[in-house]
Amino acid sequence: MKVGIIGVGTVGASVANILRDNRDIITARAGCEITAVIGVVNDLSKKRDVTIELTDDIEKVLNDDSIDIIVELMGGIEKPYEVVKKALENGKAVVTANKALLAYHRYALQDLAGDTPFEYEAAVAGGIPIINALREGLTANNIESIRGIMNGTCNYMLTKMIKEGIDYDTILKEAKELGYAEADPTFDVGGFDAAHKLLILGSIAYGIDAKPEDILIEGIQNISPEDIDFAKEFDYSIKLLTIAKKIGNKIELRVHPALIPNSEMIAKVEGVMNGVSVIGDKVGETMYYGPGAGGDATASAVIANIVDIARRGKGSPMLGFESSNKEFLTLMPKDEIQTKYYIRLRVEDKIGVLAKVATILGEKNISIEKMIQKPLNKTCAHLLLSTHTSIEKDVIEALENIENAGAVTEKPVMIRIED
Amino acid sequence: MKVGIIGVGTVGASVANILRDNRDIITARAGCEITAVIGVVNDLSKKRDVTIELTDDIEKVLNDDSIDIIVELMGGIEKPYEVVKKALENGKAVVTANKALLAYHRYALQDLAGDTPFEYEAAVAGGIPIINALREGLTANNIESIRGIMNGTCNYMLTKMIKEGIDYDTILKEAKELGYAEADPTFDVGGFDAAHKLLILGSIAYGIDAKPEDILIEGIQNISPEDIDFAKEFDYSIKLLTIAKKIGNKIELRVHPALIPNSEMIAKVEGVMNGVSVIGDKVGETMYYGPGAGGDATASAVIANIVDIARRGKGSPMLGFESSNKEFLTLMPKDEIQTKYYIRLRVEDKIGVLAKVATILGEKNISIEKMIQKPLNKTCAHLLLSTHTSIEKDVIEALENIENAGAVTEKPVMIRIED
Repeated sequence: MKVGIIGVGTVGASVANILRDNRDIITARAGCEITAVIGVVNDLSKKRDVTIELTDDIEKVLNDDSIDIIVELMGGIEKPYEVVKKALENGKAVVTANKALLAYHRYALQDLAGDTPFEYEAAVAGGIPIINALREGLTANNIESIRGIMNGTCNYMLTKMIKEGIDYDTILKEAKELGYAEADPTFDVGGFDAAHKLLILGSIAYGIDAKPEDILIEGIQNISPEDIDFAKEFDYSIKLLTIAKKIGNKIELRVHPALIPNSEMIAKVEGVMNGVSVIGDKVGETMYYGPGAGGDATASAVIANIVDIARRGKGSPMLGFESSNKEFLTLMPKDEIQTKYYIRLRVEDKIGVLAKVATILGEKNISIEKMIQKPLNKTCAHLLLSTHTSIEKDVIEALENIENAGAVTEKPVMIRIED
Repeated sequence: MKVGIIGVGTVGASVANILRDNRDIITARAGCEITAVIGVVNDLSKKRDVTIELTDDIEKVLNDDSIDIIVELMGGIEKPYEVVKKALENGKAVVTANKALLAYHRYALQDLAGDTPFEYEAAVAGGIPIINALREGLTANNIESIRGIMNGTCNYMLTKMIKEGIDYDTILKEAKELGYAEADPTFDVGGFDAAHKLLILGSIAYGIDAKPEDILIEGIQNISPEDIDFAKEFDYSIKLLTIAKKIGNKIELRVHPALIPNSEMIAKVEGVMNGVSVIGDKVGETMYYGPGAGGDATASAVIANIVDIARRGKGSPMLGFESSNKEFLTLMPKDEIQTKYYIRLRVEDKIGVLAKVATILGEKNISIEKMIQKPLNKTCAHLLLSTHTSIEKDVIEALENIENAGAVTEKPVMIRIED
């Protein structure tokens, strides 16, 4: 079986090299030899740590009849879409690690692929075989919820902030130096990377189509030392969570920082590691843990797909459903979300402020569960509180009302609590 | 697709009922309707919580041409072996949750099955799709090690012992009352159940054939409050671990209680839950967590196999290898195992005893890492120590020598440390 790799960066080089270095075990498992025969790069003059032949002629590779599988690792959205489309038209199986491509075009790609294998294990949570687990391991279940820690950059930063008390700007600088964060970190810290992965899992769990712009996406940029202190005080961790949840026949899809009780298994996922907790109506909770990034770990998932294609020809249905889900499911509007909330208010330290805040919350049927008041200086204090389960719309309106009533000296901050 | 269930106990009833209750989602995922049409029971007069037809005529079901898949849930070894053999001869796919059957007959069954699907996800770690992960998700990797917590009874007991200080006999009684332990608990607490599961994973990871009697199996019966105290003092958990490890071209397969640092993810698997940590040479560590037992959780895994068969016809190679592993691997003899050890000695509290113990350990090249001496009464003390990495044979001989030298007042106890 012959593989062409489009894009020979870190992951592409790992795919080529693992197919070479682990040839014996992979051949025994697959039942045939799998060879990376060529890699496509933009710049042939750049030195790369691979022994496969390289070319800059993408068309030649896409039209080469001897190549069975195209591995797409080029990055971007529209260009790779054209490439994999061409590969499928030419009857080649496709394996990709490209989550952005899938976040926008997964249903079109499913239609295009038809019976030709189109696989993407590496697109979600890197080396963890979570697509495999959700698409094949849990098929007996109605999925009640998925909660994922699927961005290593954010988890590294939040872990350091909570364990070592380092502030956001300092840890972001460190993450950049370590290569965990890009020069422009927005894609990671803003939650967009995690959102792409969530949309893929949402399709497999529920058969629901949505694009990034349809769902709630919040990043970790506003997490302050006060929030960390509150979390520690009440034995929570703060994680950038991706959440897919079924409430009746509405599906919540959202990405945001969340407070999670430390007793939960998913709260124990630390540093750059990823973890995904899935609750099925029959199996209960299962959790999947491992490296979410890195050349070899991601390539491990890419090659798992290649071996699967070599073994079985036709794979599982690309997005997990052979026929459409009969149940009519719709995306839950963002403001209908119900959860618990942590709220940080910077208030003037004077009589009547707490009463004003409590009254406004009460008007929106928001009841307080826990509260800490911390003096900031002579005139100001932080009011840190958590609520019982409330409706997102009410919380947002209450915070606006608190701001408009002049009860606070800076914009209120809210973090959802997931327990 | 029509399913016959042989054995309608807790798991069999769950399989039938989930296929009924989750029919819509399962049909959408599988692409066809899957129906449990009949269940075979020994005693037709016993009331069961199912709506499928029941019979006590096993032959009729095995010979019924309209049945596509036989689900074997009868328990035992030789009887189910004959049953699944017959099913395979009649061209029926087989799904089983029977780990004992596989511990003894998996290679014979692989030969018998040939291209007919024979699946067994539920046989290891209940609802966790670990067979799926190891057989399909991690195929790019040489597996360096697998460490599993795969017996919920033992993990429940050990968790209670370490968290609440309850002693072994009390917690065993409680586990029996809660239905977590059988009237004769030996199969669980003696490590045999976990060993059966380990042998299956050893085959998928390494293609190595072994029977329970070939491998090291120790239970948790000798864990004392002193051991628990030592573990807590040095931030360890005690778990019944199943270990498969590749050292050169020797494979260690062993089941025994082990001390694990609390910082490791697998140490955080508590109560009746199961967890399996797999280290691959390329992906690094991935971990799988979930319920290891229970009717619905186990049935979730059984049905995942059924859906897979419905979708793809031919499954993956039963034991993970399409052709035999070229690398010549042998089972590592028990006494060649190398690890760290915790040793508990009950000694007379008098001058010279520690010197005697230290001398005997030194003669066997065993060096002490940590030690606690605790007075027991006026004349006796406990010497609790951990060693640096040592050879199993040396440790066993040293403990015999310590006993023979009259340095201890009861048989020395040893627990391996895995970090």
